[in-house]
Amino acid sequence: MTQENSHILSANLTHLDREGQAQMVDVSEKTPTVRQAVAAAQVRMLPETFAAIQAGNAPKGDVLGTARLAGIMAAKQTANLIPLCHPLPLQKVEVLLTPDAQLPGYQIQATVKTKAETGVEMEALTAVSVAALTLYDMAKALEKSIQIESIQLISKTGGKSGDYYQ
Amino acid sequence: MTQENSHILSANLTHLDREGQAQMVDVSEKTPTVRQAVAAAQVRMLPETFAAIQAGNAPKGDVLGTARLAGIMAAKQTANLIPLCHPLPLQKVEVLLTPDAQLPGYQIQATVKTKAETGVEMEALTAVSVAALTLYDMAKALEKSIQIESIQLISKTGGKSGDYYQ
Amino acid sequence: MTQENSHILSANLTHLDREGQAQMVDVSEKTPTVRQAVAAAQVRMLPETFAAIQAGNAPKGDVLGTARLAGIMAAKQTANLIPLCHPLPLQKVEVLLTPDAQLPGYQIQATVKTKAETGVEMEALTAVSVAALTLYDMAKALEKSIQIESIQLISKTGGKSGDYYQ
Amino acid sequence: MTQENSHILSANLTHLDREGQAQMVDVSEKTPTVRQAVAAAQVRMLPETFAAIQAGNAPKGDVLGTARLAGIMAAKQTANLIPLCHPLPLQKVEVLLTPDAQLPGYQIQATVKTKAETGVEMEALTAVSVAALTLYDMAKALEKSIQIESIQLISKTGGKSGDYYQ
Amino acid sequence: MTQENSHILSANLTHLDREGQAQMVDVSEKTPTVRQAVAAAQVRMLPETFAAIQAGNAPKGDVLGTARLAGIMAAKQTANLIPLCHPLPLQKVEVLLTPDAQLPGYQIQATVKTKAETGVEMEALTAVSVAALTLYDMAKALEKSIQIESIQLISKTGGKSGDYYQ
Amino acid sequence: MTQENSHILSANLTHLDREGQAQMVDVSEKTPTVRQAVAAAQVRMLPETFAAIQAGNAPKGDVLGTARLAGIMAAKQTANLIPLCHPLPLQKVEVLLTPDAQLPGYQIQATVKTKAETGVEMEALTAVSVAALTLYDMAKALEKSIQIESIQLISKTGGKSGDYYQ
Repeated sequence: MTQENSHILSANLTHLDREGQAQMVDVSEKTPTVRQAVAAAQVRMLPETFAAIQAGNAPKGDVLGTARLAGIMAAKQTANLIPLCHPLPLQKVEVLLTPDAQLPGYQIQATVKTKAETGVEMEALTAVSVAALTLYDMAKALEKSIQIESIQLISKTGGKSGDYYQ
Repeated sequence: MTQENSHILSANLTHLDREGQAQMVDVSEKTPTVRQAVAAAQVRMLPETFAAIQAGNAPKGDVLGTARLAGIMAAKQTANLIPLCHPLPLQKVEVLLTPDAQLPGYQIQATVKTKAETGVEMEALTAVSVAALTLYDMAKALEKSIQIESIQLISKTGGKSGDYYQ
Repeated sequence: MTQENSHILSANLTHLDREGQAQMVDVSEKTPTVRQAVAAAQVRMLPETFAAIQAGNAPKGDVLGTARLAGIMAAKQTANLIPLCHPLPLQKVEVLLTPDAQLPGYQIQATVKTKAETGVEMEALTAVSVAALTLYDMAKALEKSIQIESIQLISKTGGKSGDYYQ
Repeated sequence: MTQENSHILSANLTHLDREGQAQMVDVSEKTPTVRQAVAAAQVRMLPETFAAIQAGNAPKGDVLGTARLAGIMAAKQTANLIPLCHPLPLQKVEVLLTPDAQLPGYQIQATVKTKAETGVEMEALTAVSVAALTLYDMAKALEKSIQIESIQLISKTGGKSGDYYQ
Repeated sequence: MTQENSHILSANLTHLDREGQAQMVDVSEKTPTVRQAVAAAQVRMLPETFAAIQAGNAPKGDVLGTARLAGIMAAKQTANLIPLCHPLPLQKVEVLLTPDAQLPGYQIQATVKTKAETGVEMEALTAVSVAALTLYDMAKALEKSIQIESIQLISKTGGKSGDYYQ
Repeated sequence: MTQENSHILSANLTHLDREGQAQMVDVSEKTPTVRQAVAAAQVRMLPETFAAIQAGNAPKGDVLGTARLAGIMAAKQTANLIPLCHPLPLQKVEVLLTPDAQLPGYQIQATVKTKAETGVEMEALTAVSVAALTLYDMAKALEKSIQIESIQLISKTGGKSGDYYQ
């Protein structure tokens, strides 16, 4: 690859400077606007694991409630986990876990909002990931083969680069 | 559900006490042994995104190197992210990212080792998850539809509950 | 309780959504204003413990100085400790520890200021709590029965919901 | 105070060296043993606030569940909050919130266990404090005058300095 | 020293209140402006250590890349490390490591930008310090006598107190 | 450089695997022993800055006391700051700041102890670095040209690789 090509490619890869080195890029020229991102994940398990969580969850809500709180708290740790993420004020973090008997398992969705120079996709993706990991942690004594699947961005609105809907 | 049934189910759900409340359970009776866990994830993207990372990655290794380091550092944050995880000393954290042209995308694998009273499944799963999220973060300017798939435990060895191989 | 009643009650409990689930609620519609909160706590101990701290403190100020710094630093950790607190920039954190020979013990007061969409009551309360815990930690070899009492909000100014004075 | 007296007093104040300076003292000569500490706090509120939490809590358990998880997670942050605390592995953290209609309000109790060279009093005290602060945070829209009272050590067992019961 | 003199001196020492006590001072009256700080450090080592890093670094870039990322991530931890630093949003963090065969060793430079009421000198200084510490960590098996030298502020622009150039 | 040479060099660079990739290497085969490391740094300033700190410091000890506490707390954050450091229990952290009128400025020394499979050089070096940064932060209103110099390892004892004295 020529030096010139390297520059062109780097321009498209987030967080790389002209030498191809990872940096936390300058966003001070961008205008702070309200930005929102929605991300999703699903956690697939055996029917009997799903039944046990659904049953065990009924009286106290602890399995799903713990996963939801872990996801919310993780959104606030995003800039400490993802090396090149800008630290941002967050103005809303909502995590929802919905039972899906067809899967069987749980659908997880997170919505994060900020008023900042850059978006909160990583915060939403981190929230669903950690909520899913927590669900695994709570149920791993029942089944070690639980899988976290399809962590993805559903939508992103409010930035200059245009809205995105999956 | 009867009170009695609730107790039986709770006994199988990790981290719930007899009232169904989430707690960080007592492991002080368990013997510290060397324990290892291996987890995996894959990150699927468009062929052109994969080509750009592979090309851009050649001279400096920053995209994959950044993801690898993020995964290693995240393993050390596991007990701060997963509410009921015990804080453990870690004696090895290895994260590998392998290009997979068939996917196309990357296979991620993490191996974590401890000498402790409880295992490191969550540390290995957290490492691959955050490495995958970082890969997304580095490439999201190229493609927002990148998906993190199949986060799962590959093996777990060294605890009293017996070894597990997927 | 009917579903309808549940909605009414939830509306008054901070951080619960319409399903009664804890979330970090949306404050993006609120206007950023300068907000200040003052909180207080007191630490009660035996007269001889108080005398020892007062005496030991004279030459170097370490007991009270350590507690003061711990309170200031804890204010900056509030959003990591209190699950549904919004992360906020802080523009002032002041912690004062005053000996109170009548108690006997120490009065602790914290003043926290921000320019944000939501208030800093929790930051002020966290600051006095951790300052008090640190005082306990520094003196626990002398007396284990030291008590932290009356952690409370003294005032809150600057938000739309009106000022509060105890 | 004479220099000599200063030495005597410092010897009794935890964490001060011979110059009266705060340090994280050497515990490497101590034998690791199983140690447990129990701490308590109470949160006092108006009868109507108590009624609202009790009612709102019924279907989902989120107010008390959130406070319980916050207390557990805070125990793991103790060495980062209390400047001179030794970082310790924790083998059990249990936080219980019990409604007390007489108060009215909630009794909070935390039990923490480790196998280490030093005790976990501060971890137990930190857990009840942060659980109480979270309860305040969840209910502060209903009542700002909620008070956290009587944070204290209930018992401490397992160290060389002898057991302590309040 | 008289009480009056103490006040005068304290006024010039950042972070001390009128009693000479360390506080996180009020910056809410200051206007948020774009502020930038540049800091530098150098890491000196034996010629053979330098040669080994330069050679070993060629194929993967891991030694310098790891140090660069550690510096960037540390900038985001500044307010958690330096007790009286205000937590700030950061809009750019760039860390550069340049081989210096004359030293022999590496020159490290960090540039940090914010739009805030106070500057980012400490963030830039923390970034170069942790990048240098990481370089030491990566090479300490080769040579324990590596030295970190001349951590200093190169420039500071954008605040009301005037620009500074070394 | 040939592939073979790369392997030889990597073997000498800490934290690189056979591919030259940074990893947190396996220390589970090593025996836990008591290990101690001592590190030093010096902070050089103008005579008038030194005089002001010495004077201002007399009544309350806050400048030096704050730096000392910051160093102690930073030692506990080492594994979160230095990417490939193993998280270790720490059994002693002592930070001393000594005025040096000849410099003029301050000599900083940190002693850290653990009982673990690997040493605490990085913890001691991190402690002196953050204590020095805090000193800078406290005095930067007086002088921006303060320099942190000569961060270095003084000694390391207790590991299998043999003791080291500078």
